[in-house]
Amino acid sequence: MNSAAYERGVQRLKEVDAEAADSVMQSLSAICPDFGRFIIEFAYGEIHSRPGLSLQQRELATVAALTAMGSAPAQLKIHIGAALNVGLSSTEIVETIIQMAVYAGFPAALNGLAAAKEAFAERGML
Amino acid sequence: MNSAAYERGVQRLKEVDAEAADSVMQSLSAICPDFGRFIIEFAYGEIHSRPGLSLQQRELATVAALTAMGSAPAQLKIHIGAALNVGLSSTEIVETIIQMAVYAGFPAALNGLAAAKEAFAERGML
Amino acid sequence: MNSAAYERGVQRLKEVDAEAADSVMQSLSAICPDFGRFIIEFAYGEIHSRPGLSLQQRELATVAALTAMGSAPAQLKIHIGAALNVGLSSTEIVETIIQMAVYAGFPAALNGLAAAKEAFAERGML
Amino acid sequence: MNSAAYERGVQRLKEVDAEAADSVMQSLSAICPDFGRFIIEFAYGEIHSRPGLSLQQRELATVAALTAMGSAPAQLKIHIGAALNVGLSSTEIVETIIQMAVYAGFPAALNGLAAAKEAFAERGML
Amino acid sequence: MNSAAYERGVQRLKEVDAEAADSVMQSLSAICPDFGRFIIEFAYGEIHSRPGLSLQQRELATVAALTAMGSAPAQLKIHIGAALNVGLSSTEIVETIIQMAVYAGFPAALNGLAAAKEAFAERGML
Amino acid sequence: MNSAAYERGVQRLKEVDAEAADSVMQSLSAICPDFGRFIIEFAYGEIHSRPGLSLQQRELATVAALTAMGSAPAQLKIHIGAALNVGLSSTEIVETIIQMAVYAGFPAALNGLAAAKEAFAERGML
Repeated sequence: MNSAAYERGVQRLKEVDAEAADSVMQSLSAICPDFGRFIIEFAYGEIHSRPGLSLQQRELATVAALTAMGSAPAQLKIHIGAALNVGLSSTEIVETIIQMAVYAGFPAALNGLAAAKEAFAERGML
Repeated sequence: MNSAAYERGVQRLKEVDAEAADSVMQSLSAICPDFGRFIIEFAYGEIHSRPGLSLQQRELATVAALTAMGSAPAQLKIHIGAALNVGLSSTEIVETIIQMAVYAGFPAALNGLAAAKEAFAERGML
Repeated sequence: MNSAAYERGVQRLKEVDAEAADSVMQSLSAICPDFGRFIIEFAYGEIHSRPGLSLQQRELATVAALTAMGSAPAQLKIHIGAALNVGLSSTEIVETIIQMAVYAGFPAALNGLAAAKEAFAERGML
Repeated sequence: MNSAAYERGVQRLKEVDAEAADSVMQSLSAICPDFGRFIIEFAYGEIHSRPGLSLQQRELATVAALTAMGSAPAQLKIHIGAALNVGLSSTEIVETIIQMAVYAGFPAALNGLAAAKEAFAERGML
Repeated sequence: MNSAAYERGVQRLKEVDAEAADSVMQSLSAICPDFGRFIIEFAYGEIHSRPGLSLQQRELATVAALTAMGSAPAQLKIHIGAALNVGLSSTEIVETIIQMAVYAGFPAALNGLAAAKEAFAERGML
Repeated sequence: MNSAAYERGVQRLKEVDAEAADSVMQSLSAICPDFGRFIIEFAYGEIHSRPGLSLQQRELATVAALTAMGSAPAQLKIHIGAALNVGLSSTEIVETIIQMAVYAGFPAALNGLAAAKEAFAERGML
């Protein structure tokens, strides 16, 4: 185990979305706790902790990619929440999603907007 | 034809990547010139011209999405060039691409880095 | 706004699936009404209104593509309804879907058939 | 109809997952019974019946592919059950799924683990 | 081996694209001749030989799907040739491809147009 | 840096494909050497080094997934070589690839066979 990366990852994940993180770790505990460690150590401790991009840029890129891929709506919704947490506005999120109509088609953007509606509604933003 | 959107699109496309735009339009002239008009009018005149995101945010989102999708390496390379044109640094581009390893896998990120290498090399940046 | 394309799009959308269109526009009103306009203006007013393919051919192509992509089951179901609305038979729709087993695999075709079953059942066709 | 392949397919499908097979055939009977025949004849009677790979290898490959593609969670869950049926351990299945984080991204692996949790829970294995 | 389906498949494949078929079979002979048999027996002898859709509808659906998926440009080019062989016009093919911009994004449509340009050019149609 | 995982990763990568590894690291040195470290540390030092699956099972899963995804032919070819290096037979590899016709379509399997032909030919196996 890489304890420095793990510590960085825990820190970063807390800034981004403490609640979602807890819930993902919880859901992994019964089937593969190590995978929770990889998310913290690699995804957050190595990648999301690097200098060179702001947290806002990182979440914007993630929202764009998950909208375009279209195969992970639950994770997209979590990252829309994370994008709000790190300071992106709902307008910036919606604009990122609808831009994906150009690169991945209108259905991908529509499904991205549906995820955004759910995430915004849970925060009383609609 | 929507001439206002068309004019906005031409303007926007020039800011982003005048040369690539000419080459795409040229390649469409023999097979479907209207599709060139749709790129200008819809993609650039409607979507990329909207307020709410900066040009830098828009290109960062596009680089993220095309890297994650993995099915359009030529367009990815063009948008890496566009990202440089609107002021993103090579570091920001590389960080966006490698972050996609988390969301779309290492091969997608590796192929994105290969596109970046080509785009950077053509500008003498490597 | 491109009012000519918008008018064409409204017209075309009514022919294809008036009810589904209303419901999509309604669902967009709270989050991004402009995206509803883009669907009407670009998707229906520009693309689906072009000569060169019949409405039946356009819906057959859409059902094929959404089945193969596998990432937009709700939109696939809407377009299966639209395919019926413009005069394709349930046999033509089922044949299009199962052909996708060859190009995108059996799971994609199975999920397409599930969408068709729902669309047919809602119309009392099963 | 290819009755030799059909017989081989029925046999193979019984070894792999008799119950799931019945349920898929049942669900196809109202919309396209021939597609059920193709699954039996081609997928199981031709491909899964070939020598050269063990049933365990075939299900491991299927679990890997469906996890990576991310577009057929119901079929993935069925094949996780099939993998158990042909003798793969829950550890082998979980390891195959988390390896997909490397090739298709963490969200694909997380969704694969969610399918495994459901399949394991239905068998009282969690 | 299913000789009835095989005979139907050979027949159908000749109508669709005799030359491309020979070249695919040739390329498979050294690595997996059985796979060539599956293409003939299943794809052409079972699926493409079914009543319910015309050959033109089948090739239109295939061109739509392969354009939208974006992961098989060589096969897309072959099916654009096949579409011409069964009587679809170049306009119908181009319209099918650009419609995919709506469902799978502009890059997918652009890459589809590039495949069409190559297929048309080889036949002296540009 | 996680030096234990790094050491395990280097070791594992040498067993799997020393030459391909050198060439990937070399190609990353000019653009993002850290990404080479992540491949070694995470992909090989964490994932591929875990107990629970044999190296043969891990490469079989990787060949299945990359064939099905269809978006990384160069990496697929490398992993076909790696599969041979860890002791899978060419028959096992070909069977894994053609099975993907069922799950991801015939074009994905055909492109997988093309990658296998190249990998086998480079080793004088055809």
